[in-house]
Amino acid sequence: MKKLTFLAVALMMSVAAMAQQALWGGAAVVSPEVHPDNSVTFRYNAPKARTVQVVGDFIPGDNGGTVAMTQNDKGVWEYTTEPLASELYSYSFIVDGVRGVSDPSNVYQIRDVASVTNYFVIGGGQGDLYLNKDVPHGSIHKDWYYCSQEGFNRRVTVYTPAAYDGKKRFPVLYLLHGIGGDEEAWMDLGRASQILDNLIASGKAEPMIVVMTNGNISQQAAPGYGPEGFVVPSMGLPKTMEGSFEAAFPEVVKFIDGKYRTIAKKSSRAIAGLSMGGFHSMQISKEYPDMFDYVGLFSAALSVGGQQAGSPIYENVDQKVDTQFAKGLKLYWIACGNTDFLYQNNLNYMASLKERGHDYIYYETGGGHIWRNWRDYLSKFLPQLFK
Amino acid sequence: MKKLTFLAVALMMSVAAMAQQALWGGAAVVSPEVHPDNSVTFRYNAPKARTVQVVGDFIPGDNGGTVAMTQNDKGVWEYTTEPLASELYSYSFIVDGVRGVSDPSNVYQIRDVASVTNYFVIGGGQGDLYLNKDVPHGSIHKDWYYCSQEGFNRRVTVYTPAAYDGKKRFPVLYLLHGIGGDEEAWMDLGRASQILDNLIASGKAEPMIVVMTNGNISQQAAPGYGPEGFVVPSMGLPKTMEGSFEAAFPEVVKFIDGKYRTIAKKSSRAIAGLSMGGFHSMQISKEYPDMFDYVGLFSAALSVGGQQAGSPIYENVDQKVDTQFAKGLKLYWIACGNTDFLYQNNLNYMASLKERGHDYIYYETGGGHIWRNWRDYLSKFLPQLFK
Repeated sequence: MKKLTFLAVALMMSVAAMAQQALWGGAAVVSPEVHPDNSVTFRYNAPKARTVQVVGDFIPGDNGGTVAMTQNDKGVWEYTTEPLASELYSYSFIVDGVRGVSDPSNVYQIRDVASVTNYFVIGGGQGDLYLNKDVPHGSIHKDWYYCSQEGFNRRVTVYTPAAYDGKKRFPVLYLLHGIGGDEEAWMDLGRASQILDNLIASGKAEPMIVVMTNGNISQQAAPGYGPEGFVVPSMGLPKTMEGSFEAAFPEVVKFIDGKYRTIAKKSSRAIAGLSMGGFHSMQISKEYPDMFDYVGLFSAALSVGGQQAGSPIYENVDQKVDTQFAKGLKLYWIACGNTDFLYQNNLNYMASLKERGHDYIYYETGGGHIWRNWRDYLSKFLPQLFK
Repeated sequence: MKKLTFLAVALMMSVAAMAQQALWGGAAVVSPEVHPDNSVTFRYNAPKARTVQVVGDFIPGDNGGTVAMTQNDKGVWEYTTEPLASELYSYSFIVDGVRGVSDPSNVYQIRDVASVTNYFVIGGGQGDLYLNKDVPHGSIHKDWYYCSQEGFNRRVTVYTPAAYDGKKRFPVLYLLHGIGGDEEAWMDLGRASQILDNLIASGKAEPMIVVMTNGNISQQAAPGYGPEGFVVPSMGLPKTMEGSFEAAFPEVVKFIDGKYRTIAKKSSRAIAGLSMGGFHSMQISKEYPDMFDYVGLFSAALSVGGQQAGSPIYENVDQKVDTQFAKGLKLYWIACGNTDFLYQNNLNYMASLKERGHDYIYYETGGGHIWRNWRDYLSKFLPQLFK
């Protein structure tokens, strides 16, 4: 007993000493601390700093705001919020004017394009959908498929439900990201696997396969996962929204139907996306009108017909959408925040659909072009699928 | 053309403005910058800071060191290294005495227990194994299996090789982490999928399935992925190195053999691990002497026989190891750094093996109890398997 215990303790102390305190160790403060009333205290242990602010999407402002922290007598900067609604929140610090400083006390971080922020979740409401609960979990797969149009391999994220056992077949949702995102975005920022696990476990959504593609057609994989190396992630990738991604889409469907036990027919296929991914979902679903019975456009980057960018995909859009509706579908679901810069654009698109006699369902929220809305839209969209 | 182009540009600018500069945006400097001679410049844009240092494992010191940066006339702190050998390196900043400050210009980060550090890779040598090259890629799976001994679901990472197409069967390596690690560690810190992709693509390693378990038996999943919530990761979890993980191991083997197309026999199974995972590999392989033909102990937390911690697993260790060797195995591979705090411990273990007439192969390196060694050991171990 003594010998092993000694070894284990020595191991822990040695590794701790080397890997933690000596070389990397950060501040020994608790941050963030969620209090029983759901107010949250942030702490940053910087005795010599002259100003420290916290930037967060829980602070009022167009897309979040900034508030000053105050230094206590031990040199630790602190700020405590009002009680917060149940949600996933992001934040970082501004230290002596330097933006984007991570909280060294919080290892939970998400990348959004080229920014990394810390996050935390307040449970007890909508945020419960974003937590890993003690429920049956689906599997996450990172696969690669060959894209013959572009002539290289492309990475894709696939969720298979807990009930996926290699025998039964399941319907498939294709879930697309926006500009600046990639095949990681819906998992990391969108909490897709948690939302799916929780909605399926509670019987609110059908068990389904969810495929999260990389919509940047010129890119093999998310930054850091492809041969492009450790690039600085950016928005303006070549060939974005020029029709190539939409043109190549049947190949990913074929790959998924070949690799996974899918129900490979229109009545068991859905496509949805946010922003650019909503635009892609609209274009792809109308281009292949026999492929999807369910369409979801989340804060979609739509304009009313007539898009052209040198690709046949963007020609005769209205006419193709008319054909799509004429062939029949089960759900055309549009969601947007009323302060989104694409709000009017979405209203115009719906007015045109209505004028042409097409049925859709519209879900309007407050807020703008933000992940809080997209997580909410996903959680409202999923229960309507494959019933 | 005009309409779509306008929309795309507006989208990019709006999203960029909101998500990046306005709320989160960090410093607009390039860091790290790798020069043609493989020297590296780090930059931290903090005009008001009084001292900034860079902490890195490329700076001499027991487990890395610290060096002062100098401020240029634009307020940016800079430090340029000597030319560096090809390797994966980690670093963070110390700003006015605050340790563990991430580089806001570098989105590439790894968590090691409770510390998050930035990293970069210098190619052209060993580091090439750690890069995502344009080669066929295996798939990564995050699965859950029910552990009846503990009565809850446990998360496991599985690598399947690019050739895995649901028809052919493959051998399996079980790859175990150390104290403070979890089922993410070999992927994130160990670059396991890159090493496997690259060695398999070049014909140096056989295509194989690799299973990365969570060796913390009291934990369902890595921090942030289980119902434990967003805990601060720590070393001293309950029941660590008390025999429970080893006792439950056949259940994960059964799960993997049931779910994946494995070659389910001793000659096609390997087990290896670092530090605590090396201790686990030794214990598990001797406890189930018909299970593994290949054993790898990387900087293993071994002592010479007689371990007891109230578990029958740790009783009669020498005798069980004798039985394991008597039954025959193809490789018993031990690697350690000569400044590792477990170096003497490993020498003692090998002396005892030798005394009892058992064959093993020993690979000694410089350096201590560090991931640089464990990545190297994995890259040397894999080519010896399943030949």
